[in-house]
Amino acid sequence: MEKINKSVLSTVIKVRNTESYKGNYGRVLIIAGSLPFGGAAILSASAAIHTGAGLVTVATIPEKFTALNVEIPEAMTIDYNKSQELIAAIIQNNVIVLGPGLGTSDSTDKIIQLIIKYCDENTTIIMDASALSVVAENNIDLTSINNLILTPHQGEWQRLSNLSIPEQTKENNLKAINKLAPNATLIVKKHLSEIYYQNKVSQIQAGNAGMATGGMGDTLTGVLAGFIGQFGNSLVTVQTGLFLHSYIADQIYKSNYVVLPSTLISKIPKYMKKFTSNK
Amino acid sequence: MEKINKSVLSTVIKVRNTESYKGNYGRVLIIAGSLPFGGAAILSASAAIHTGAGLVTVATIPEKFTALNVEIPEAMTIDYNKSQELIAAIIQNNVIVLGPGLGTSDSTDKIIQLIIKYCDENTTIIMDASALSVVAENNIDLTSINNLILTPHQGEWQRLSNLSIPEQTKENNLKAINKLAPNATLIVKKHLSEIYYQNKVSQIQAGNAGMATGGMGDTLTGVLAGFIGQFGNSLVTVQTGLFLHSYIADQIYKSNYVVLPSTLISKIPKYMKKFTSNK
Amino acid sequence: MEKINKSVLSTVIKVRNTESYKGNYGRVLIIAGSLPFGGAAILSASAAIHTGAGLVTVATIPEKFTALNVEIPEAMTIDYNKSQELIAAIIQNNVIVLGPGLGTSDSTDKIIQLIIKYCDENTTIIMDASALSVVAENNIDLTSINNLILTPHQGEWQRLSNLSIPEQTKENNLKAINKLAPNATLIVKKHLSEIYYQNKVSQIQAGNAGMATGGMGDTLTGVLAGFIGQFGNSLVTVQTGLFLHSYIADQIYKSNYVVLPSTLISKIPKYMKKFTSNK
Amino acid sequence: MEKINKSVLSTVIKVRNTESYKGNYGRVLIIAGSLPFGGAAILSASAAIHTGAGLVTVATIPEKFTALNVEIPEAMTIDYNKSQELIAAIIQNNVIVLGPGLGTSDSTDKIIQLIIKYCDENTTIIMDASALSVVAENNIDLTSINNLILTPHQGEWQRLSNLSIPEQTKENNLKAINKLAPNATLIVKKHLSEIYYQNKVSQIQAGNAGMATGGMGDTLTGVLAGFIGQFGNSLVTVQTGLFLHSYIADQIYKSNYVVLPSTLISKIPKYMKKFTSNK
Repeated sequence: MEKINKSVLSTVIKVRNTESYKGNYGRVLIIAGSLPFGGAAILSASAAIHTGAGLVTVATIPEKFTALNVEIPEAMTIDYNKSQELIAAIIQNNVIVLGPGLGTSDSTDKIIQLIIKYCDENTTIIMDASALSVVAENNIDLTSINNLILTPHQGEWQRLSNLSIPEQTKENNLKAINKLAPNATLIVKKHLSEIYYQNKVSQIQAGNAGMATGGMGDTLTGVLAGFIGQFGNSLVTVQTGLFLHSYIADQIYKSNYVVLPSTLISKIPKYMKKFTSNK
Repeated sequence: MEKINKSVLSTVIKVRNTESYKGNYGRVLIIAGSLPFGGAAILSASAAIHTGAGLVTVATIPEKFTALNVEIPEAMTIDYNKSQELIAAIIQNNVIVLGPGLGTSDSTDKIIQLIIKYCDENTTIIMDASALSVVAENNIDLTSINNLILTPHQGEWQRLSNLSIPEQTKENNLKAINKLAPNATLIVKKHLSEIYYQNKVSQIQAGNAGMATGGMGDTLTGVLAGFIGQFGNSLVTVQTGLFLHSYIADQIYKSNYVVLPSTLISKIPKYMKKFTSNK
Repeated sequence: MEKINKSVLSTVIKVRNTESYKGNYGRVLIIAGSLPFGGAAILSASAAIHTGAGLVTVATIPEKFTALNVEIPEAMTIDYNKSQELIAAIIQNNVIVLGPGLGTSDSTDKIIQLIIKYCDENTTIIMDASALSVVAENNIDLTSINNLILTPHQGEWQRLSNLSIPEQTKENNLKAINKLAPNATLIVKKHLSEIYYQNKVSQIQAGNAGMATGGMGDTLTGVLAGFIGQFGNSLVTVQTGLFLHSYIADQIYKSNYVVLPSTLISKIPKYMKKFTSNK
Repeated sequence: MEKINKSVLSTVIKVRNTESYKGNYGRVLIIAGSLPFGGAAILSASAAIHTGAGLVTVATIPEKFTALNVEIPEAMTIDYNKSQELIAAIIQNNVIVLGPGLGTSDSTDKIIQLIIKYCDENTTIIMDASALSVVAENNIDLTSINNLILTPHQGEWQRLSNLSIPEQTKENNLKAINKLAPNATLIVKKHLSEIYYQNKVSQIQAGNAGMATGGMGDTLTGVLAGFIGQFGNSLVTVQTGLFLHSYIADQIYKSNYVVLPSTLISKIPKYMKKFTSNK
């Protein structure tokens, strides 16, 4: 099992080309939030923007537009219950985060179906939280999604894989993800999170118990979307995004009892600069 | 009378277990806020999150969801006037704050009745502000609540106990709380606040007049909820939460004429880390 | 003409009594804001809270409650178009700011009439901006208000006094304010603002052109309300509040081209502490 | 081609006259924002205020008023769909930003027609983003606007000029802008942005790839409006505003991987002070 440490960062985070524009750094669509889970969309989108995503659109319910405008004026907003608008956004964007704070209602199922139907084969889909629960409940077939990243915590992975937590060994996890979605990248979030991709297993050497707080997973989806939008979807990009999220949390944890998502997000641009490769 | 000072902090604030997740740090429900008192819910919930509570849900009126999403995207929101949702939340959470900014309308009485009926014997109820006034006015019987903390200031305690402020001696207060709710912990907020629990009286050696500002009590409820969610409901946990709140205020007061709740809240994670025990 | 400088600060800003509570530091009602001028209420209320006012209620339109809850969760909110609520608030509070961002509609006239009818003789009324324009237009008689402070800039003072700016000499200003409202304190806001009270004229030795920006006058009303709520309405209290506002602005202006109201507000607690008298 | 560098800053940014008031520093109207692009209005207005504009009014849709009040309480708000209010604002203001986040609906066309009809010959119009697209689509004649600044990026300029990006040479650009609007100033936003005015071409020697993020162009419109409001519309004022925007971004980019608009805006007052001329 490959151990991922700080050296991964400068492999992926590259100096930007001076002759570039925002369209070069990813068009990210974040489908997230519902009445009781309004903040999830904010955290995911804010993380994507702080990571350097070029253009970020949030598909949520209109009741959440004002809070999004305040916290992240850089993001655009659409209503995910307007199917035509959502389909257009699915087609136009090349990284899609699906799940934070969506809840497990019928509309989540409907959105997953639209993604499966309309997303381009080059578009990366990051599925998290409620979206994973709905996939598990409704036995949705994910094999047609070409670029798929799943980010369950151990409990969500249990529902998806039918593996109890003690059964979640490397071998069993590999088998399960290869059955569920053969080309997908699986992140199992836990103490020292693991990444499964085809026949490879890797583990990040970062993270701490101060991250055990609401919103930390939403934040991760945004970081991953920002990385993929800028550096492309590959195993090493996913490893780097996941590692950076935990690495920044470790620095905050040195002087804070709990690592709040909004604190972590605010520090992303400085840590990415610090680890930018000149290659 | 036991004097509580800085040494209490590292007794209670423990290093987090690396193999833990947010569910280990308390499920906190904050029932708070009404049209004129919208900020109380924000301050209480924000304090709970900064203290390290794992999952925080705010039950308030929908008009306040946007402000909550902006200030604390980490928190979930529900409408306390939807009884079924509120009952489900009462059952699912293990620490409940009841009162900040609720007002003294009929709906407050109704919510107290739901808590009495549905809360689990292991769930801690922290009653503050308007909830205490309604208890006093309507002579509500609190003896059936197994884990109860009351946080009146002297005026609210007068209404609850029928003891005028000069009559609020240690002996009278002990008698009154033991009659009102024999297992409850009583905090009387004043200069050098006092804690009454069974036959014990303790007093914190911290606090200052810069705390005499709106919202400081709302903030305390969140700190207490965060402590109980993480360290369990015991006398020493309550003493520590109460002490820390005033201790941080004392540090701010050294260079500020008034101690604003939002300033205090922002400093909680650093002070908790500073006083974390390695035990 | 008395010159007011830094020495005035520690005359007024006193160490708080340890045995005090928020009710000792003023109950401030800020009647402010309308659809196009939503921020004025925020700036005035935020300044009052940062100055140390014990309890602050904002009477505005409900459309502005969310923004107020976000920016100043410490403040309560009521709807100034609900007359019964407004009358109750006029009676309960002992400092009232009237005018920032109200606009010159009929409802402003109606609110002024309610203040004249219901405010207590010990309550201080601070009139600013739109309220002054409506007083001028409708020839409202202010002589029945016992504790009155008017804070016009030179243009507003021209409308109130019928004195053109070149005619606004000390002698003419004294005559005009004594005719308009004999017991009132008049602040004419300009470069080196002047204070007129009975037969006394004083001038503050602070202020700069970086303050020439929207919202600076709204902020002043909150500072004055905070000072009067804590230290009582007297000439020296008004001088101190006015001086402090400009003095903090001067410190900010040393390193900023423009002095934004929100920057000024955030620095009030530290400057007040610095100039607290031990007397 | 003139190269614009740091020396331009202190040519334009002058010490403010102590005897001045907010009316001396420009009345800026920002017509911006729509349901999906709510943040554009916030960024443009916030930049104008931080640059020192005396009075800023935002014409947008009412759904965005709350977010504006939170982020920039200093700004006034009106509804651009109420024609009478908008016409009054067009007449009263002397710098108008038109375009950020407006979208390309019929209402944008209607607003452009109102500007052409009602704006004073001394009023400067800064056209950006959607407004430029609508001008291109509907072949709107801009020659009647006396003080006009266009701020397209290369793609928008292609739509306006019918010049493909490789065809956008200095000679072709000069010809195209002189045909489109002979007195206009044209900024083509790109790596080392260029300014075209009459027969002059200049290029700023600042800017970086970290600026390739959503909202950076909205921010520029606010900076330009603030500069013109304070220092008048001239080639050197436009050069200075454009240069300062990129120069601050360069300082941020030294320690941040991406330059967020809100970070840039917060630093404007300090950099303007640093480069203030004593002349």
